[in-house]
Amino acid sequence: MKTLDKGIFITFEGNDGCGKSTAVRGVYDELVKRGYDVVVTREPGGSKIAEKIRSLILDNDNMGMDSRTESLLYAASRREHIVKVIKPALEKKQIVLCDRYIDSSLAYQGYARGIGIDEVYEMNMFATEGLLPNLTVFVVADPEVGFQRIRKNARELDRLEHEDIKFHKDVYLGYMKACEKYPDRIKKVNGEQTLEEAVNEAISVVVNFVEGK
Amino acid sequence: MKTLDKGIFITFEGNDGCGKSTAVRGVYDELVKRGYDVVVTREPGGSKIAEKIRSLILDNDNMGMDSRTESLLYAASRREHIVKVIKPALEKKQIVLCDRYIDSSLAYQGYARGIGIDEVYEMNMFATEGLLPNLTVFVVADPEVGFQRIRKNARELDRLEHEDIKFHKDVYLGYMKACEKYPDRIKKVNGEQTLEEAVNEAISVVVNFVEGK
Repeated sequence: MKTLDKGIFITFEGNDGCGKSTAVRGVYDELVKRGYDVVVTREPGGSKIAEKIRSLILDNDNMGMDSRTESLLYAASRREHIVKVIKPALEKKQIVLCDRYIDSSLAYQGYARGIGIDEVYEMNMFATEGLLPNLTVFVVADPEVGFQRIRKNARELDRLEHEDIKFHKDVYLGYMKACEKYPDRIKKVNGEQTLEEAVNEAISVVVNFVEGK
Repeated sequence: MKTLDKGIFITFEGNDGCGKSTAVRGVYDELVKRGYDVVVTREPGGSKIAEKIRSLILDNDNMGMDSRTESLLYAASRREHIVKVIKPALEKKQIVLCDRYIDSSLAYQGYARGIGIDEVYEMNMFATEGLLPNLTVFVVADPEVGFQRIRKNARELDRLEHEDIKFHKDVYLGYMKACEKYPDRIKKVNGEQTLEEAVNEAISVVVNFVEGK
């Protein structure tokens, strides 16, 4: 197995239904094939407390939850995930692929809920103690397409998926703002190609980053 | 009933077992006798979501919870309490007496847990949108005495009460630091007199504040 000097933290972002989870799996397979030690995770993954917090956020019983409360709960869940999963893996010099992280909070609560991207960012600096991804892959796809995709899905929708299309368009605009603010960290991948093409583009962005270092 | 120009927000702080809750009741009775419209509350009071968050924090099942997670969860619970209880009462120009608020976070998580008072304060500014008490009554009593008092109590101890005396002494020091930082807002009451004397001192501090305006 290839050994790295230090761990690499890579996050994947995008609207619901943009194909981001498929991209994570594709990148994982490629990195493993190349001999890297890779961990795939997603919030609240792997921490009992974080799971409990997440179930509070998504519970349909809690409709009408205040946006700042929601944002603080996501940050608490993120904190647990960092402490229990991400940091230990980075200390073992693994590559961590994480499905959603701070930019989701910037797009969803900071922009779409109207709290403000900078305010949500600052609060998350408390939660993360400044742990930012080395690279973020943003899968860019028309929010309308992703929205139809999750709507067609047979399973019951959670509280956030109940939001209307206006909200998902705002999330998209929020991601675009985050890209403007952090152009060095966030790289865009075109999610409107075929899924295979999008995954290949994500793989190439990540491999270039990992091996170009 | 006396009508105020605007609501007044008063919080009560101190170590566990310092007599603060008795002071709140004494102050409430006196203000009501004087014809004011008063609301007594305590976090997470009166909000279903805040109750659920609080039960997560205090659950003995969650021993070993990270300090920043704990701090974010308290802030989330505080946020709900503000939105559902405190702000509506202040808008109705009531006097709100609240048992514990931001200074508890500064003393417990900021100082005793070692996160840092300023960091916890900043994060709480996100949760409170800057809503600080007009007056804070800090009931000062030897933490050792309060600690023995809660230990003698027959009911089962929650996760935080399980902490040892060293922790409660640090909480006390944390409150002292908060007093130095915010001397205009926080007024000390001597909790080492008889309980009756302490309550009378708290009443006099609050009445002077409310009527001296």
